[in-house]
Amino acid sequence: MSKAVVFFADGTEECEALLVVDLLRRAKVEVIVASAMGRRELVSSHKIHLTADALAEEVDYSDVDMVVLPGGIPGTPNLAANKTVTETCAAFAKAGRKVAAICAAPSILASLGLLEGRNATAHAGFQDQLAGAIVHDEEVVVDGNITTSYGLGGAIPFALELVRQLAGQAEAERIRNAIAYRH
Amino acid sequence: MSKAVVFFADGTEECEALLVVDLLRRAKVEVIVASAMGRRELVSSHKIHLTADALAEEVDYSDVDMVVLPGGIPGTPNLAANKTVTETCAAFAKAGRKVAAICAAPSILASLGLLEGRNATAHAGFQDQLAGAIVHDEEVVVDGNITTSYGLGGAIPFALELVRQLAGQAEAERIRNAIAYRH
Repeated sequence: MSKAVVFFADGTEECEALLVVDLLRRAKVEVIVASAMGRRELVSSHKIHLTADALAEEVDYSDVDMVVLPGGIPGTPNLAANKTVTETCAAFAKAGRKVAAICAAPSILASLGLLEGRNATAHAGFQDQLAGAIVHDEEVVVDGNITTSYGLGGAIPFALELVRQLAGQAEAERIRNAIAYRH
Repeated sequence: MSKAVVFFADGTEECEALLVVDLLRRAKVEVIVASAMGRRELVSSHKIHLTADALAEEVDYSDVDMVVLPGGIPGTPNLAANKTVTETCAAFAKAGRKVAAICAAPSILASLGLLEGRNATAHAGFQDQLAGAIVHDEEVVVDGNITTSYGLGGAIPFALELVRQLAGQAEAERIRNAIAYRH
């Protein structure tokens, strides 16, 4: 079974995070919602009160296949302020392990120098913060082990792409049909 | 300011509910996430732990403009089992006040006799439970004060339609652009 960690901070765009959790769990991927705030109780960007599965610092990343950074403000700067989050993303990216980010969050990868010369996207308001990247204004951009998306409007195809990477094309198609996503 | 109640039960499809909350709150609609379980702590269909804003029984519905039923299993039967939820939906529908449901949840409206002769949709697996309705296999169907959608894959256009109804077309377009939903 594949395993993914979705980071979550106060101010994280709830559905950018939860659509990924939702679709990966449908695909039987083990998903840990990991808090970047040092406490499990969180408040999302639109005031949803939720409880993470673990603190980011409590997770054993040795057998994790993918880490995911959702966007949102101030979720994105809150994620960027957590050393476990940034060091894990950097270590994953450099080791060829899978890293994904959506909306404002690809800017975190850029600030860590991980998008240098890589194809990537982000929300239109954050594309100028992808220094070093070859920027595309697209729903989902895959460059090797790094997958980025431009925002909530692309969160379903982003999540389906992550399903494809961790559970295969057939499972991604099965889920796309199950949720009646027909674009 | 408009006001909406989004009902939530154990087993509710989290993103069918939360995309509506998310987009309505972006539109400055006051949204109450109301638990149908007699307690505020809930577990969604894909094991997200969240806390509702209120119990369904605690809400004053007198100035509420819209009630929303998300789908999910067993979220849908759990919503159907709550008398406050069903009686409120029936009272709203009969008084010409706005009711919306997505995925499996339109079957609740049908079982209450509220879709008799009305245009409606639901998830493909629940369209045969829309007895009395004129069934369409579409993302979003609006018939007067009743709006239905066929599932998570249509949840963004469903939520944008609810924004349009409560905050106007311009606000729905603004949010559609802000979230980079370009279909």
